[in-house]
Amino acid sequence: MENEAFFSSDGDIMIVPQLGKLSIMTEFGQLEAEAWHIVVIPRGIKFAVSVDGESRGYYTEVFDGHFKIPDLGPIGTNGSANARDFEIPKAKYFDQTDDFRIVQKYLGKFFEYTIPHNIFDVVAWHGNYYPFRYDCHHFNTIGSISYDHPDPSVFTVLTCQTPDAGLAAIDFAIFPPRWLSMEDTFRPPYYHRNTMNEFMGNVAGTYDAKEKGFAPGASSLHSCMSAHGPEAEVLEKASTCDLKVNIFVMKIIFSLKKLEKGA
Amino acid sequence: MENEAFFSSDGDIMIVPQLGKLSIMTEFGQLEAEAWHIVVIPRGIKFAVSVDGESRGYYTEVFDGHFKIPDLGPIGTNGSANARDFEIPKAKYFDQTDDFRIVQKYLGKFFEYTIPHNIFDVVAWHGNYYPFRYDCHHFNTIGSISYDHPDPSVFTVLTCQTPDAGLAAIDFAIFPPRWLSMEDTFRPPYYHRNTMNEFMGNVAGTYDAKEKGFAPGASSLHSCMSAHGPEAEVLEKASTCDLKVNIFVMKIIFSLKKLEKGA
Amino acid sequence: MENEAFFSSDGDIMIVPQLGKLSIMTEFGQLEAEAWHIVVIPRGIKFAVSVDGESRGYYTEVFDGHFKIPDLGPIGTNGSANARDFEIPKAKYFDQTDDFRIVQKYLGKFFEYTIPHNIFDVVAWHGNYYPFRYDCHHFNTIGSISYDHPDPSVFTVLTCQTPDAGLAAIDFAIFPPRWLSMEDTFRPPYYHRNTMNEFMGNVAGTYDAKEKGFAPGASSLHSCMSAHGPEAEVLEKASTCDLKVNIFVMKIIFSLKKLEKGA
Amino acid sequence: MENEAFFSSDGDIMIVPQLGKLSIMTEFGQLEAEAWHIVVIPRGIKFAVSVDGESRGYYTEVFDGHFKIPDLGPIGTNGSANARDFEIPKAKYFDQTDDFRIVQKYLGKFFEYTIPHNIFDVVAWHGNYYPFRYDCHHFNTIGSISYDHPDPSVFTVLTCQTPDAGLAAIDFAIFPPRWLSMEDTFRPPYYHRNTMNEFMGNVAGTYDAKEKGFAPGASSLHSCMSAHGPEAEVLEKASTCDLKVNIFVMKIIFSLKKLEKGA
Amino acid sequence: MENEAFFSSDGDIMIVPQLGKLSIMTEFGQLEAEAWHIVVIPRGIKFAVSVDGESRGYYTEVFDGHFKIPDLGPIGTNGSANARDFEIPKAKYFDQTDDFRIVQKYLGKFFEYTIPHNIFDVVAWHGNYYPFRYDCHHFNTIGSISYDHPDPSVFTVLTCQTPDAGLAAIDFAIFPPRWLSMEDTFRPPYYHRNTMNEFMGNVAGTYDAKEKGFAPGASSLHSCMSAHGPEAEVLEKASTCDLKVNIFVMKIIFSLKKLEKGA
Amino acid sequence: MENEAFFSSDGDIMIVPQLGKLSIMTEFGQLEAEAWHIVVIPRGIKFAVSVDGESRGYYTEVFDGHFKIPDLGPIGTNGSANARDFEIPKAKYFDQTDDFRIVQKYLGKFFEYTIPHNIFDVVAWHGNYYPFRYDCHHFNTIGSISYDHPDPSVFTVLTCQTPDAGLAAIDFAIFPPRWLSMEDTFRPPYYHRNTMNEFMGNVAGTYDAKEKGFAPGASSLHSCMSAHGPEAEVLEKASTCDLKVNIFVMKIIFSLKKLEKGA
Repeated sequence: MENEAFFSSDGDIMIVPQLGKLSIMTEFGQLEAEAWHIVVIPRGIKFAVSVDGESRGYYTEVFDGHFKIPDLGPIGTNGSANARDFEIPKAKYFDQTDDFRIVQKYLGKFFEYTIPHNIFDVVAWHGNYYPFRYDCHHFNTIGSISYDHPDPSVFTVLTCQTPDAGLAAIDFAIFPPRWLSMEDTFRPPYYHRNTMNEFMGNVAGTYDAKEKGFAPGASSLHSCMSAHGPEAEVLEKASTCDLKVNIFVMKIIFSLKKLEKGA
Repeated sequence: MENEAFFSSDGDIMIVPQLGKLSIMTEFGQLEAEAWHIVVIPRGIKFAVSVDGESRGYYTEVFDGHFKIPDLGPIGTNGSANARDFEIPKAKYFDQTDDFRIVQKYLGKFFEYTIPHNIFDVVAWHGNYYPFRYDCHHFNTIGSISYDHPDPSVFTVLTCQTPDAGLAAIDFAIFPPRWLSMEDTFRPPYYHRNTMNEFMGNVAGTYDAKEKGFAPGASSLHSCMSAHGPEAEVLEKASTCDLKVNIFVMKIIFSLKKLEKGA
Repeated sequence: MENEAFFSSDGDIMIVPQLGKLSIMTEFGQLEAEAWHIVVIPRGIKFAVSVDGESRGYYTEVFDGHFKIPDLGPIGTNGSANARDFEIPKAKYFDQTDDFRIVQKYLGKFFEYTIPHNIFDVVAWHGNYYPFRYDCHHFNTIGSISYDHPDPSVFTVLTCQTPDAGLAAIDFAIFPPRWLSMEDTFRPPYYHRNTMNEFMGNVAGTYDAKEKGFAPGASSLHSCMSAHGPEAEVLEKASTCDLKVNIFVMKIIFSLKKLEKGA
Repeated sequence: MENEAFFSSDGDIMIVPQLGKLSIMTEFGQLEAEAWHIVVIPRGIKFAVSVDGESRGYYTEVFDGHFKIPDLGPIGTNGSANARDFEIPKAKYFDQTDDFRIVQKYLGKFFEYTIPHNIFDVVAWHGNYYPFRYDCHHFNTIGSISYDHPDPSVFTVLTCQTPDAGLAAIDFAIFPPRWLSMEDTFRPPYYHRNTMNEFMGNVAGTYDAKEKGFAPGASSLHSCMSAHGPEAEVLEKASTCDLKVNIFVMKIIFSLKKLEKGA
Repeated sequence: MENEAFFSSDGDIMIVPQLGKLSIMTEFGQLEAEAWHIVVIPRGIKFAVSVDGESRGYYTEVFDGHFKIPDLGPIGTNGSANARDFEIPKAKYFDQTDDFRIVQKYLGKFFEYTIPHNIFDVVAWHGNYYPFRYDCHHFNTIGSISYDHPDPSVFTVLTCQTPDAGLAAIDFAIFPPRWLSMEDTFRPPYYHRNTMNEFMGNVAGTYDAKEKGFAPGASSLHSCMSAHGPEAEVLEKASTCDLKVNIFVMKIIFSLKKLEKGA
Repeated sequence: MENEAFFSSDGDIMIVPQLGKLSIMTEFGQLEAEAWHIVVIPRGIKFAVSVDGESRGYYTEVFDGHFKIPDLGPIGTNGSANARDFEIPKAKYFDQTDDFRIVQKYLGKFFEYTIPHNIFDVVAWHGNYYPFRYDCHHFNTIGSISYDHPDPSVFTVLTCQTPDAGLAAIDFAIFPPRWLSMEDTFRPPYYHRNTMNEFMGNVAGTYDAKEKGFAPGASSLHSCMSAHGPEAEVLEKASTCDLKVNIFVMKIIFSLKKLEKGA
């Protein structure tokens, strides 16, 4: 992707790489991303993505709000995704006067135009509206240390709130490696249904509610209030196995809400 | 305490027994309480306390708001103190026409008057303003399952919010037995200071930031922004001991804020 | 309707029977309903309706919010629809392993799938998200006891609020039997127009703004800001008749707002 | 009161005359007031009161908020105290250069100073911060027209809200003449207790919960959560008398809250 | 336009005349408007427009909220568009019984019906929902009196807020004649992009960011986050010209947001 | 001040030097301050002040909220005090084991204790709760550029909001040098009264409402709703002098509200 850039007037974009390395040039500088990273490009910011070999991942765009760290309630001022771990690019400059093509997505349609210089010509910047990268290894996972499972919302990394109090357009949550040491508790996720539509992708590892058939790069979607949970085989195994303290491998799940409200 | 009752017009009362059994008669019926229980009597509700032998405990009154389960944020709809575990008395009836003395606390002063019948003569009741008991054994403790300590607010059982968003008049928090399995983390509480004034009592067990000299029944007070934390000896021991997964014993801590704002 | 159930992922459903008896099986148990009852099935809850002979009624689905008792303002903590009068089903169990068909409404379209057992197999439940029935005979009607008519909003039973303060997606209001004893006041509803679209149905009785041609089972719709009110004949009669205190018969009116905002 | 004026820096003042006529000169013009009127002088506005013969009444000052018509909830946009019935003075001019004494109340203490001209020298004014008069005969009383009593808050004329949602510093309510035609209902006010401190005065007529001993000009005070209600004799009489539709005479009741929060 | 009226059920209408005089008959009376005026007709209010010769202007309709003076923040209680300068019609009466055609716009479609009398037959009215006119000459323009440009939002006349805090459906802003005396500052508007879509019209004068080709009556549209600003020629001229205090001529700019959210 | 530090548990402190240079050591590092600077030390942060020769200034402490940049309303995202101009200290380290005395102010009383090392021993810090300095020369002054004066709130630098919407505990405002070029307008501040108590100090220059007798270092206090404004002589002069565009010199004014609400 040379002499080209893209921006969306419709909303913030989140990119979740699963395979391969992405080099994402933005007006604010460059971001490198691979598995375990997430990258957010805010509405209207121009960017261009280069890949190095085979690559695969997840991508979403949200039409309400912006991706933000949720208000953590009793968890307090630290915990979950800490503000200090979000990485912001430094300005990078291309001094080129070739033709440069820009593609805009606006109200769900694509438009394009050409300008006579490289759009990535920013020598310095100042402000608080910028793309960023987050490495999910930094996630400070919170959970039960007594008994029972909290709701999966406890694994929320970023949320896009709507003016309906408590209603998010998107919550992005992960199921990272963690210690499950609660007592008298069935360990895999319980059978459940959500008012949020739940889209799940596997970035790495095995998902404990579905040990087979959900390889990295796979994805699943459960629509609003469709019940789902561990299979009978998983129920059997988790109910009878030895309850030793153990570590689970990583999964990334992101749920979509209000997907009917596009531009 | 016979033919007598008390009520406070100034605010909600919380009782935290540490030694002995309390029998608390209220207009809504009777509550039995001992160590690990807390009892809340709302503003204006008449009650009388009987003790059986030696007894000791903690008592506080709050002039703003009511004791409520905090909004749990990402912890979700269950976790911490679950609504279903709060116990409500059943109506109990005394049909007596002896003189009955009532003591009222109003704007910090005491008043009394006598009526010609037992005030505890309620045969049935309906509503949502009542005294209750909570057994702290039911607390669903949440904490880090990766690394680091969350803020102690994660142990909040009940809170009295003020109209200042995020500012509580009182948070009642406990440090119950729990599994601490986070990695690369100094285990006792870290050195810190709060804008909240912190009053702490020990209901049972040993406090890991102060292993000696803080027996059950003791209490400590750290005023707003006074720094405190584990002693040098605790620091030394916790930094060098073997990091095995372990269970800690129970402590109950309650912090006071805005104590300057009495009636 | 045997071995079948339906659920909507799009919103809460309200059923207002006018003729005949409905037997509504839900995951939470069974609700019987006939004229003067309303039944609400929340988003995502599976149910099946059986009728006994001829039946007729009104049905609506709302895409924003949930049906709730409105905040009553100066009317206080009791009045209008009292919380205690809403009836909740008890769990009911079918132990069947026949094929069972489930139809889902999602984003305005229908989907279906089959499971190998009766979905109504709940032996007990706990929570605060459930279907319910309300008998409009219990409505504690509030009105003027001096002069003039209040706005019809004073007859609101349930409302679905939106994040626009003061803007409901739906208000469900009734015009039940009541004493009109205000002085110096024209008794039928006055001529008016609303920003809310007004859908009205007659469950029983005669409507005093339209004495003929609006029989039980009929319905009318006035779109946003279309003026409407009593006919000339009604005006004439109500202006000249003797002003004795009287009782009016029942009508149920429900107005729709934001009907343009479907899934 | 000549060549003198008073103002309070501490809060809004409400005057409720019971006997005699008051002539209240303000910076905005003159207000005449007698029984059934209320007058509000906002914080900081200078005024002087002249009486004509014997006079008596009630006076209160509020340290939080301003006197406002409450948000009426389902009662809607009209009802209770209608905005159009509040009377605002017209500018009135004194062209005098005599010494003029001004007394200020500030943080609960009195201060005074003299200026060389009449302070009431305003020839015209513009704005939305002014004293006003309300004639309680205009009150559009709302109540039950089916069964039961609503909370007395339904009679609120003006309220001073605090930042605690739902908590007023003062509610000023009246019990005006009205039609009580609800069925199956004990007619006098029921036995009750409030978190609000309740100060009551009688402007005119007989109070149905206390038929004797509460003459016009009398007043009573029930502190926070002190129970009160009709006497045994009233209970007996109202339980056995014939339930005919009748009109009650006027009483004015105003309750005080947070009276401990003075300047 | 005789014996005809129009109303929109979809939202408030704003009319900005640029050429010619409009005579706008409404249910509340008549409004005359020409260049420098704006007229707002609220949702559902019937009106008819007569022109006198050639006429031209701008028209918009908004589906969320109502046109209101923005909360001015530190600017205080006066400044920008002062409430006192909005002009409200007086009732005007036509006593005609000819056929009268009414056209309604509802959910983006047109409907019509005929009534047997002139709809403009209002002899008096009372309320706070009415059409109005504002003369932009009255705008109290606020700006920098030290250095730099504030955001163009400082020129907002009216706004239609949405429930998203800080997000307007439409802001109507003007660039009226004003004194630009800030020091060390490039005077024309700077190069920028908005999340709001920006529609601009020229009512009178020359626009300093585009001195040629944007005559009165012209309009431009920049979609969400499309960058725009002064041309190279303007940059050159404004960077080198003598910095004398001067007056700029009038322009009216109105920006659209959430234009995708129609009825 | 050696081997000593002070902190207040009661609230944030603001220091406004008028004469001399202050060297303020804090736990976060050192801040130098002189005339035109303001320094804020948050509640609970330890600090020590050294002076170099004669020094004088203003000092205030606030018991509600924290000093923050006000929400600017239509002024937008930049203007008034820009976030980027607030200066934050860098960590500075003293490695001393002498006795060190700490004085605490708590609930209006003083307490002290001694520790065996210098409290200013912070080698690095991270967070968002810190002391800061602001140089008022950076203030981006906003005002009328057409006619009339805005309210003095337009000069607000920092505010301490209370939970009463729109009510500040303190607003700190300045009257810096600026261009007054509005037309048809009396230039000095108009005669007025505030609900806020107004404390004013002169840091440098001449105050145009009181040209004599208010030298740098002086201060004045006008209590709630006490009227004040330019003297007769100033009125005369400003009404008749030539209206040339001019620059005014600096004054700093800070108003106090709710001063009755101490700890």
